[in-house]
Amino acid sequence: MTDSNCIFCKIANGEIPSKTLYEDDSFRVILDISPASKGHAIILVKNHAENIYNLSDEDAGKIYVVAKKVAIAMQKVLKCDGMNILQNNGEAAGQTVFHLHMHVIPRYNGDKVQIKWTPQDAAEQISEEVAKEIRETI
Amino acid sequence: MTDSNCIFCKIANGEIPSKTLYEDDSFRVILDISPASKGHAIILVKNHAENIYNLSDEDAGKIYVVAKKVAIAMQKVLKCDGMNILQNNGEAAGQTVFHLHMHVIPRYNGDKVQIKWTPQDAAEQISEEVAKEIRETI
Repeated sequence: MTDSNCIFCKIANGEIPSKTLYEDDSFRVILDISPASKGHAIILVKNHAENIYNLSDEDAGKIYVVAKKVAIAMQKVLKCDGMNILQNNGEAAGQTVFHLHMHVIPRYNGDKVQIKWTPQDAAEQISEEVAKEIRETI
Repeated sequence: MTDSNCIFCKIANGEIPSKTLYEDDSFRVILDISPASKGHAIILVKNHAENIYNLSDEDAGKIYVVAKKVAIAMQKVLKCDGMNILQNNGEAAGQTVFHLHMHVIPRYNGDKVQIKWTPQDAAEQISEEVAKEIRETI
């Protein structure tokens, strides 16, 4: 299923041209047009899903196999020093296009990508009651 | 296969206690002891793999299904505003424990998690030749 108003649907399904690195029945992997680093790619799901919450289990079962393939090839060709795999859900998490996509970001020593956080105090951690509620909801 | 010198192997396989949210034959999901945000969890693979390059295809095929389950439950219970799924490979990418783990980071409007980058110039993008080499390597 594609959403006719979604630009990533159009790219994933080939209606809009892109720099494609890989394609199969479920995904298209393209170079990001605003790369964080040399080789930054995104994996687009072909069946429209806004985010991880409504990604099909079938596509969830395939996406990391694709990420692995891409990461291995990139590491080999680009000889990068590391690799972040990142998938953002919701504006508060930095998602800007509301069609699920997974970033594959080659990292180089001294690059300017910032992925970091200040650890929260233990007091900020969730209580045992909340942890229990999550456990029972999973 | 576990590595007897690896602390995440010991946690994943229950030799060291942890705040476990979920467990199945292949993974254990625990609360991060230095959380970026309330509810920050990590998915640990039970079969030792250092990173995505040597994760088994079998585990790669299951890990995002687990991430989805956890993300849905967290969103429901914590009522967070967003969710980052992040998996770091190599020191240059921020990996600190060399046993594959996937971060599930609930995000809240105004929190202090920094996941951002300055887009590189088009000139910094990889050439068509390099893209072709990656395509042929995947």
